[in-house]
This record gives sequence, structure tokens and C-alpha cells, in this order.
Amino acid sequence: MELIDGNAISKQVQADVAAEVASLMGQPCVTFIRVGEDPASVSYVNKKQRIAAEVGIESRLCVLPESTTQEELFLIIDELNADPGVHGILVQAPLPAHMNEREVFNRVSPLKDVDGFNAANIGKLCQEDPSAFVACTPAGIIELLKRSGVQTKGKNVAVVGRSLIVGKPVSLLLMMKAEFGDATVTVCHSRTQNLPAIVSQADIVVAAIGRAKFITADMIKEGAVVIDVGINRVEDASRKSGYRLVGDVDFEAVAPMCSAITPVPGGVGPMTVAMLMKNTLKAFKLSQS
Amino acid sequence: MELIDGNAISKQVQADVAAEVASLMGQPCVTFIRVGEDPASVSYVNKKQRIAAEVGIESRLCVLPESTTQEELFLIIDELNADPGVHGILVQAPLPAHMNEREVFNRVSPLKDVDGFNAANIGKLCQEDPSAFVACTPAGIIELLKRSGVQTKGKNVAVVGRSLIVGKPVSLLLMMKAEFGDATVTVCHSRTQNLPAIVSQADIVVAAIGRAKFITADMIKEGAVVIDVGINRVEDASRKSGYRLVGDVDFEAVAPMCSAITPVPGGVGPMTVAMLMKNTLKAFKLSQS
Repeated sequence: MELIDGNAISKQVQADVAAEVASLMGQPCVTFIRVGEDPASVSYVNKKQRIAAEVGIESRLCVLPESTTQEELFLIIDELNADPGVHGILVQAPLPAHMNEREVFNRVSPLKDVDGFNAANIGKLCQEDPSAFVACTPAGIIELLKRSGVQTKGKNVAVVGRSLIVGKPVSLLLMMKAEFGDATVTVCHSRTQNLPAIVSQADIVVAAIGRAKFITADMIKEGAVVIDVGINRVEDASRKSGYRLVGDVDFEAVAPMCSAITPVPGGVGPMTVAMLMKNTLKAFKLSQS
Repeated sequence: MELIDGNAISKQVQADVAAEVASLMGQPCVTFIRVGEDPASVSYVNKKQRIAAEVGIESRLCVLPESTTQEELFLIIDELNADPGVHGILVQAPLPAHMNEREVFNRVSPLKDVDGFNAANIGKLCQEDPSAFVACTPAGIIELLKRSGVQTKGKNVAVVGRSLIVGKPVSLLLMMKAEFGDATVTVCHSRTQNLPAIVSQADIVVAAIGRAKFITADMIKEGAVVIDVGINRVEDASRKSGYRLVGDVDFEAVAPMCSAITPVPGGVGPMTVAMLMKNTLKAFKLSQS
């Protein structure tokens, strides 16, 4: 069983980005917008800013109060859309309940949409248009498979979860006419009636359903590749924090059956940030062309 | 075995559209652009214009020579995008080889994109945004299922074909959180290794691969619902034309095993035109709001 090391692979991606950034005329710049003080969002944005600095990308942070209206947020996004010094814009989710996330994501210029959540970029992904910005987590999953030498062509893939952020885009990527696509994808979700039977036929399982240890050993075919996208907090009195992070996969039981598996943490998570850097570099190059 | 009568169901949809059009202040208008004289395109556009007239929608036809450049076509599309008297625009495919269909479809204003091929509308479909214009053939398939009382929730669906025009959007529709969605969808294609085994597990099969009689009886589970999207010409010396139209399904062998099946012709085909009328009505209402 191979442990797919997302920390190591994300460092490779970051090194590639850093090398290319160093060779550029000019410096890519990404602006983060954070609304409110959700602790997880604070921590994610901090991490993204830290990695940006490491790869030589300028990052700016715009913090808005929880009480910001959607219209006020739109004005700020519009300014950033128009600012030639800003190449990428990322509005950190989750947004306050009084905002419509879809409308906010669609307000970001498709040319600066380094998160890949704008409808125009999702549509381009469907169209297999290489100019699309692809959402960072699904793009990171493909990059993990690629750099781990996992072939997808003709393989049966079960994607568990149909979210706009992971399940749908990773399915579209895996079914693309492409070297690390061409898979036969089944999208399972909460309404799926015979989920264990379906997942147990898959050569590759992508678990993105957001439920701790949902994927159990009886669902996994011997020799399968398992990609665990989940990040769930479970209580753990032995930790100072009182909790620990676990994936959507029951790792201890599943791992021995797999040919390869990603851990949580240290699997898909770090790839998401690395792909954000790659997207920011792409947005910069787009702005120069 | 129920024969799903696309002719009858499309007439119901057209009657609904006609009734609503009659109650409107103003008249919806769709403009067709046809480049060159491909006989199938001439025939399709004629049919669309005839049905438009029947439901009370104004239609205009812009015929361009095969030699038209993409830039010239863009200028015409831009004019129509800006014309408040035109609510829907449809560029008939296939386009001449010197044009990029994706770029042409993306040039049509998303608000007038009654064909649903613009990246912005495909992305909105992914986002499950009800304001999306959904491509007419996949939308027509859902309408056929709905009006035939075929439930999709929790059902296993095999979509055979991954095209942007049918396979991908119908998959996205069938997996949506919706009454006639919530299915577990597997997308099969030319690279799928065990296609007969996968299709034979499906409660609903959507065949959209463009190969005559590709789906054979051994691939079909007893009691399955089969939707045949294919329109293939096969030689037939007994016909005056020298050919007849057959679907992607071996109808004679498959039909006795099904709980319901669409014929070719007279199944999905007429629904496509009916849904185009529905989309034009939607575009008109959007222009008034």
C-alpha cells in the first residue's frame, strides 16, 4: 500500500510555481476577501497567504465585517475586478447566511476567478476548454493522481458526493478526453440506494461527502485507490484541542486494502492551496497576454 | 412495455407554450443563423421555424455563405445580442470546419442562449441555478421522463456518451437535487472498459453515443427504461431515399425487455424542438423582467 503524500506533492507543485514566478517580468498578486471572523476561515486564509509568500506571489487581504451587505461586497469585488494590479480574487467561503454564495462567486471576473467557482469557468470545464480556471480541490486531486502515477483511463471511478466544489468538477475532470481523464465515473450521493455495492466496484474512490469515516472497508475493492477529500472534526479528549481531524474514509480499516490512499490530514488538503498558487500564476499570465 | 411517445408529449409542451405565448404582452422572437447549405441543417431549421409559427413565436432566419469567417459571424451575433427585438439566438450546428463551435456558442449572449451551449449557462446548470438555459435535448429527456411518470430519485442511470450537447448536461440534470433528478449517474463512453456490464445494472439507460444499434438486448436489465437519443442513417434499399433512421438502441430486441422505451424517430427528437420553444419563451420573459 502506497501512502499518497499530499504534503510532499504539494511542495513539488509549489516549487514549480516558485521557479516560474521567479522568471516572470512582474509579480502575480492575489487578493483574499474574508467576511467575518470564522476561525476556520481565518486559519485557511492565513495559510494561503503564507504559501503565497513562499512561492513569491503577492497577496492582499481584505477583511470585512460580518454585517457587510452583499451589495457592499459586490462593490469591492467590482473594484478588484477592475484593478489591473490584482490578478486573482478569492472570496473565502463560507459567507454569512445573508449572502448568496453563488451570486458572489459569479461576481468575480472569470479572468481572475482563481477559485474556479464562477459559472463561466465551470461551463468552460464542461466544454473541456483549457483556458478554464478549475476549482483548486478537484484540480489538486487530479494532480495527486498524476504525480503518483495512478492511471485513470478506462478505470471505474466512484465519486461520493455531488457538491459544486468537489464532486461535480472532479467528475467532469475524470471523464474528460485527457490523459488523466477518460475514466468511467459514477457520482453517488445521499439519495444513492446501493452505495456500498457501487463503491465496491470502483478502481478509484473519491470520497467527498463530508461525513467522518463514512467509507468503510466493506465498500472497498482490494487494490483500489482511495482519495479522501473529507476534513471532519471528531471529539478526542486526548488532544489539547479536544478534537482531531479525520477524513470521510475509515483510514485504519481501509488503508490495508488499497494500492494507494491519501491520509487526512496531509493528503488532498495541502494540494488545494498549491493549486490556488498555480491558478494565480495562470491568471497573471492571462493578464499579460 | 410502454412506448414513450415523443410526438404526443412534445405536442403537450408546445400547447403549453402556445397558451402562455397567447397571454403575453408582446411576442417572443428567435433568430436562427445557418451557415452553409448542409441538407440536415436546412431541414432542422425549417422544422424549428414551422413549430415556432405554430406556437405563436416569431422566427427569423439569417443564412450565411459557407465562406463566412468566424469574425464576420461574430459581428452578426453581436448585432443580434444587442437587438432588443430578438429574444433568442440559435446558431445551427454543425458549423464549417474553419470555425470553432465552442467560441461561436460562447459568443451568443447568455441571456439569449436558447440552445444552452454558452459556457455561462452550462456553468449555471452545474450550479443548479434555475435561471440557466438548459440545452434542448437533455431538457427534453427530463421532460419526457416527467410526463411519462418515470421516477429518477435513487435510480441507477447509465448515460452512454459524454458529449457537451447531451451526455454531460443530461448527467448533470439527472444528479441534481430535484424531483426528476437525484439519480445515481454513471457516464460511459468510448474508453469505458466493461460497458455492457455497467449498462446492464441500470434502471434507466440514456443512449447518446451516435452509433446505430449500439445498445443491444444483452446490455439491458429486465424492466429498464431506455431513452434513445441517437439518430443514425442506415442504408435501406426498400426506401425511396435509400436509407432509414435508427437510434443508438437495437429497438426490436431491446423493447420487449423494457418497462418503457422511446422510439426513433418520434421519441427524443421532437422534444428537442419543443424545448427550444420553451427556452425562447423563457428568454422573452427574462427580457421583460
